[in-house]
Amino acid sequence: MEPMRRVVSRVLLAVLAASSAGAADESLPPETLAAARTLRDRAVSGTRASEWVAGVTDRAGPRLAGSDGDRRAVAWALETLRALGFSNVRAEPVTVEVWRRDAESGEVVTPRPQRLALTALGGSIATPEAGLEGELFEVVSLEDLESRGAAARGRIVFFNKRMERRSDIGGYEKAVDVRSKGASRAARWGAIGVLIRSVGTDSNRLPHTGGLRYDEALPRIPAAAVSGPDADLLARMIQSSAPVRVRFHLACGRRGTAESANVVGEIPGRTKPEEIVLLGAHLDSWDLGTGALDDGAGCGVVIEAGRLIARMTRRPARTIRVVLFANEESGLAGGKTYAKAHAAELDRHQAALEADSGTGRPMGLSWLAAPSAEPYLRRIAELLEPVGGGRLSGDGSGGADISALRPAGVPLFAVLQDFSTYFDFHHTANDTFDKIEPASLDRTVAAVAAFAYSVADAPARFERIPVVKRATPTP
Amino acid sequence: MEPMRRVVSRVLLAVLAASSAGAADESLPPETLAAARTLRDRAVSGTRASEWVAGVTDRAGPRLAGSDGDRRAVAWALETLRALGFSNVRAEPVTVEVWRRDAESGEVVTPRPQRLALTALGGSIATPEAGLEGELFEVVSLEDLESRGAAARGRIVFFNKRMERRSDIGGYEKAVDVRSKGASRAARWGAIGVLIRSVGTDSNRLPHTGGLRYDEALPRIPAAAVSGPDADLLARMIQSSAPVRVRFHLACGRRGTAESANVVGEIPGRTKPEEIVLLGAHLDSWDLGTGALDDGAGCGVVIEAGRLIARMTRRPARTIRVVLFANEESGLAGGKTYAKAHAAELDRHQAALEADSGTGRPMGLSWLAAPSAEPYLRRIAELLEPVGGGRLSGDGSGGADISALRPAGVPLFAVLQDFSTYFDFHHTANDTFDKIEPASLDRTVAAVAAFAYSVADAPARFERIPVVKRATPTP
Repeated sequence: MEPMRRVVSRVLLAVLAASSAGAADESLPPETLAAARTLRDRAVSGTRASEWVAGVTDRAGPRLAGSDGDRRAVAWALETLRALGFSNVRAEPVTVEVWRRDAESGEVVTPRPQRLALTALGGSIATPEAGLEGELFEVVSLEDLESRGAAARGRIVFFNKRMERRSDIGGYEKAVDVRSKGASRAARWGAIGVLIRSVGTDSNRLPHTGGLRYDEALPRIPAAAVSGPDADLLARMIQSSAPVRVRFHLACGRRGTAESANVVGEIPGRTKPEEIVLLGAHLDSWDLGTGALDDGAGCGVVIEAGRLIARMTRRPARTIRVVLFANEESGLAGGKTYAKAHAAELDRHQAALEADSGTGRPMGLSWLAAPSAEPYLRRIAELLEPVGGGRLSGDGSGGADISALRPAGVPLFAVLQDFSTYFDFHHTANDTFDKIEPASLDRTVAAVAAFAYSVADAPARFERIPVVKRATPTP
Repeated sequence: MEPMRRVVSRVLLAVLAASSAGAADESLPPETLAAARTLRDRAVSGTRASEWVAGVTDRAGPRLAGSDGDRRAVAWALETLRALGFSNVRAEPVTVEVWRRDAESGEVVTPRPQRLALTALGGSIATPEAGLEGELFEVVSLEDLESRGAAARGRIVFFNKRMERRSDIGGYEKAVDVRSKGASRAARWGAIGVLIRSVGTDSNRLPHTGGLRYDEALPRIPAAAVSGPDADLLARMIQSSAPVRVRFHLACGRRGTAESANVVGEIPGRTKPEEIVLLGAHLDSWDLGTGALDDGAGCGVVIEAGRLIARMTRRPARTIRVVLFANEESGLAGGKTYAKAHAAELDRHQAALEADSGTGRPMGLSWLAAPSAEPYLRRIAELLEPVGGGRLSGDGSGGADISALRPAGVPLFAVLQDFSTYFDFHHTANDTFDKIEPASLDRTVAAVAAFAYSVADAPARFERIPVVKRATPTP
């Protein structure tokens, strides 16, 4: 994805460098600036965002798409947005594919019995009832597997790839390929199952789940993640006394479809209510924790940003639309359904921002828009400087849910947040409310609210991202 | 316990203040000092202690007394001590009471379903097969329960007592009473079960087990610990929408007796081989983790201290006896059996030290001995100063296993270690090898080895701790 994205960006720059037609004015009008500053400073002094996170985590709990918790989350969101005075509050139906985890366990069989802390990757098929037993074949990456793949036949491939702790998303991006692609890559070499070292930066006995993608052309094999300490144990055993045999049991799998919903609430615009600034987060979570960081935090941020904007005596020109998306974690049905259902008004979406980065402090503003937007964005970034969001990053992609709006050219944004500790908890049972840091969450609210007001109140429309044919990589 | 101990100490001081007969010489003989310094400096530059911890955790895994893991640990210990050249290596039989955990789970029933991360307290009886369901009654301490006990009848008492993070043992000592005594205190008020907030300083969804003691005169009720984040969840639910009902299922209980062993190895003394300096740790662990900190670390320290002493060209005058005790966690049968089996030679035990404090750096030397020992101990403490063990603490009690030697008057010692992070992991699934900090463990080896050599090579015998009748507390 990374190299591909860079190619596309260069093409965009080439196409658009000369054109500045329709560019937004460089500077924020004085009233816009004053209102955005007020929002920013009010939020920094304390918001209710954490309260909304406690609400969804305590009321709904784990809320994998299509589960009972997911239904409770939708009910909570409707109730909360109505109680806070949002307009046009509604649940927009989304059909989701259901995947469910019923039971899981695992252990080392030889050289010596040891229980393993493991969890099925989202989307994995089940093992046989008696468990799947096999000899481990340890590799450190997809590339390592490719270079020695013949040894995988009839074995369980153990991807022992370590994730680097970084404040940006880069550590995750480098590590996550074994989770998303490892099962099918191993199946291609005749493996019978996959264990991965959890994609995370902690050393707790709490494995990290997350979605895998099976290649349709290859046999599906069961795949699970072991915790970091368990991966260390397996590696030591392999080093000292190969062969190491493990057995694991996963009772999980697809369970048809279910009805969920994107929950929407609005603050109608003052003068151009038909134009929309979308603030998104996702309402669903993985099933192990209660999704406080992923993405209760984002829900809290966009709800609170909307609430604070609604309380301004001077509302912004355009409509602020808060969308709590269904099914980000296991299918993206929420984002896709939104894009289809709202296709007719996507050209009137001035911008979309997604908050899905946990509780860390703001570190910048990332954008994917026409270059003509940059001068105005630079002024917004200056406004965010005091809360830490002043760094403007032009290689943004918005977020998973709003990526479905990109083909329609909707400019996409995200507040970059500090990821240093996020991946200690991400997709684990440890993703619970106590991990929320209210002060830094408030700073993110400040950044999102000030950004949203500034963009919704901008004198001009942002240019669309032109539809650019994706460059075909050379074979 | 605490006030009682202070009373006894004062009595001891009164009895012994005038007497200095048999006191050890004040200063270490030059050859003793030189050897102890060499040991200390050699250990600080790097030891194999972590290797022994990896050995017992990887080979035996969890090793609750009487389990298969416990048997593997005994085999590992015999093999390791023999391989390292210890003399008289043997397994001294210990009959242990077996308690076993087969399955456990729990959830909030009302106001809204939420799974709970919980674990049975060691020694707890099982719940009915269908689980135990009841309304929670939250208290913050044993004292709080006593003041409002009538409300406990027919309910599940939830002890939500927080533990303070400290570098010494004080935080644990203050918090642990709800774990050891909570079940019977609640039963006295007619409660049907007990949940406690885990006795720990972390915020992971990994509950802390540990032993409870049932009062023989009261009904036994099931007792479990929930993780810190789960305790927070329950507290928020109770605060916002009492009544809160929970259900939990524990399949666990006593399973008769089994044979285990204290594993012993010696470095015979140069001139007084019949006199003994005992270096103890415990070989068993709780069943959730692999007991790296508790007490793989202690085993590693005393084995390594012994190994380093054995390699000295000039061995100390007295015998160093390494004892890896059985069954510290769930009955102390190992320590008691040792005291009985060796009753005839306890008067020839110059000293006993126990290492059962994890991986933290040394912070001092604690002692329980006749006051006449203090001048010599002060010289040893000076020797330990460079590794952090220079603070002499006269209110020591040695350790759980060697406490059985106290009635015979054996002077008891421990190297105080930094407990700041120990209780993040103690008695949880997270107590695994990756938590070991080799450099600080080496410093503890340095302190223990230098202490052991100095005491084993002391010119004089330490006076016994006189048998003092325990003061009867006023009712």
